[in-house]
Amino acid sequence: MIDKPRLNSEIRKDPVSGRWVIIGKDKGYVPAVGEHITKTNIKNCPFCAGNESCTPTEIMRVPDNNDDSKWRIRVIPNKYPALVIEGKVKKEGIGIFDRMNGVGAHEIVIETPEHTKTITDLADDEYFDVLKVFQARMLDLKKDERFRYILLFKNEGIAAGASLEHSHSQFIATPIVPKRVAEEISGSKFYYNYKKRCIFCDIIQLEKKFFQERIVYENNSVIVISPFAARFPFEMWVLPKEHVSSFEESNDELLKYMSNAILTSLKALNRVLENPPYNIILHSSPVTNNCEREYHYHFEIIPKVKKIAGFEWGTGFYINPVSPEEAAGYLRKAGNL
Amino acid sequence: MIDKPRLNSEIRKDPVSGRWVIIGKDKGYVPAVGEHITKTNIKNCPFCAGNESCTPTEIMRVPDNNDDSKWRIRVIPNKYPALVIEGKVKKEGIGIFDRMNGVGAHEIVIETPEHTKTITDLADDEYFDVLKVFQARMLDLKKDERFRYILLFKNEGIAAGASLEHSHSQFIATPIVPKRVAEEISGSKFYYNYKKRCIFCDIIQLEKKFFQERIVYENNSVIVISPFAARFPFEMWVLPKEHVSSFEESNDELLKYMSNAILTSLKALNRVLENPPYNIILHSSPVTNNCEREYHYHFEIIPKVKKIAGFEWGTGFYINPVSPEEAAGYLRKAGNL
Repeated sequence: MIDKPRLNSEIRKDPVSGRWVIIGKDKGYVPAVGEHITKTNIKNCPFCAGNESCTPTEIMRVPDNNDDSKWRIRVIPNKYPALVIEGKVKKEGIGIFDRMNGVGAHEIVIETPEHTKTITDLADDEYFDVLKVFQARMLDLKKDERFRYILLFKNEGIAAGASLEHSHSQFIATPIVPKRVAEEISGSKFYYNYKKRCIFCDIIQLEKKFFQERIVYENNSVIVISPFAARFPFEMWVLPKEHVSSFEESNDELLKYMSNAILTSLKALNRVLENPPYNIILHSSPVTNNCEREYHYHFEIIPKVKKIAGFEWGTGFYINPVSPEEAAGYLRKAGNL
Repeated sequence: MIDKPRLNSEIRKDPVSGRWVIIGKDKGYVPAVGEHITKTNIKNCPFCAGNESCTPTEIMRVPDNNDDSKWRIRVIPNKYPALVIEGKVKKEGIGIFDRMNGVGAHEIVIETPEHTKTITDLADDEYFDVLKVFQARMLDLKKDERFRYILLFKNEGIAAGASLEHSHSQFIATPIVPKRVAEEISGSKFYYNYKKRCIFCDIIQLEKKFFQERIVYENNSVIVISPFAARFPFEMWVLPKEHVSSFEESNDELLKYMSNAILTSLKALNRVLENPPYNIILHSSPVTNNCEREYHYHFEIIPKVKKIAGFEWGTGFYINPVSPEEAAGYLRKAGNL
């Protein structure tokens, strides 16, 4: 059992735009240019079954159905965390600058014991178990009063930012609500105040009634759309059809349909773009939930098929060469949806 | 002379977050996964001297000092523009969705006739001429009443989004103010209303008085800092020391010092990170300038040394493993600054 090293990081706020950044404060680290993935195999991969001693102390596991000594899903602290779990949140102002210490949780959910599998190799009910683990960890992390937001994301493939190829998702619990999420919530609240309706519920109704061409897939409880103003080619949003603001409040029936919808969409994506790198990001209510009526949780699936150039960084104004209507068409066709 | 093909694009607004996206509407385009740069050489590069007939009609040029038939800098329309110059801006609402037609300008500034040179191979006075060309094009594009913002950026290297290796910058003039810029301006205005001072002027004063460790370089009129909440390792902001809100209002003396500061910083960066890919993005007042006192123009230099992973996309909350204090130290040392 190896325990994670102490990290020296802090959280800083840009005084002009208000965005937050985790800044590493370890001396002597210069990142290499370009792409790096730790090439591993079953022998040296810390996420593989049999190599459990290479990871920090396990947080939870789902045992194998047939052999209780084995596991199907495993949650561990990140060995190289962006934030550390110990300590109180200490805020400090230095002139116009705001900083706080790098307190937070950073966990890894290993989604399969097998090195060469990814989530699209799982059956719907196996990925449902992964979603249940996500839910259990969120409910537990929510109890920690220091945390304001719990971010859940998956990087699949080098270009999407994965540093280990064995399939996993990550949780980062932070003492602040990140800017993009705060903006979405503020937009949702603005709309709700005006209409007394959830904007995501309205989007779903509009897409179903008038713009079926942007619907990738739907089942009993979940709809997948390529959104009207998609930033990226083949971007997808996976939404519960009924209003639910927080992922962790999903009931098991919804999570079963969610598992089916995510896997079905990813399989269609894999067929159209030949197993592209992608990110999955959960957008859900902050811990201090005061947007139960206004916000509507969803997963964003973002394939990495396009370099983001200076234009996008500089402006938050994206160029997407593939319209969502056309992308949804390709995905429906490829998936026989 | 080849004229640029007509493009079918529109500009859409995300109803939740308010961000704008240019959506390509050409049918049948599926992007390839991964990185692509058009490998060219002097024979087939449209930006090289001698191949002028391969580009759309020239907008302006700076002739060679010794031979008037040759050029040193050349401006042309982008052959594959994200927006097209013809037509009125037509806005349309469809339910909660906002769209407008893809009207705008998209120009290329070829910064040298030589295929293998980049701007760090130019002398300060040669890059000053490039800055003067930027200024002339901005003053001209500003006259077009359809445009609200003129974005200037450079992608150097494949990983930074360049699609042609011959050194060039790009202008995109848009009928909307992009979200990130609007946020910076709104942050600046908020601060100004409170303090009656420009926030960037205050940052410069603070950095000089108390935090010299984040200063990369300064000359008579320009300061280069690695900002307090840098999103990326070795991110730099290049700012006029005196308050100027719009780049195009710079006088020649300032532009000379600006040229020196940009090139000096890039050369130091090239030494530390061995010629990394990078983006340069101008942040300047919108065309309909109503932030003369509040906003302060600057160039952002962003080396691409780190994959942006799901965490960053999902949240606008960045992890930067290299503190700006340490980055500035490396840059000063490498550049003997």
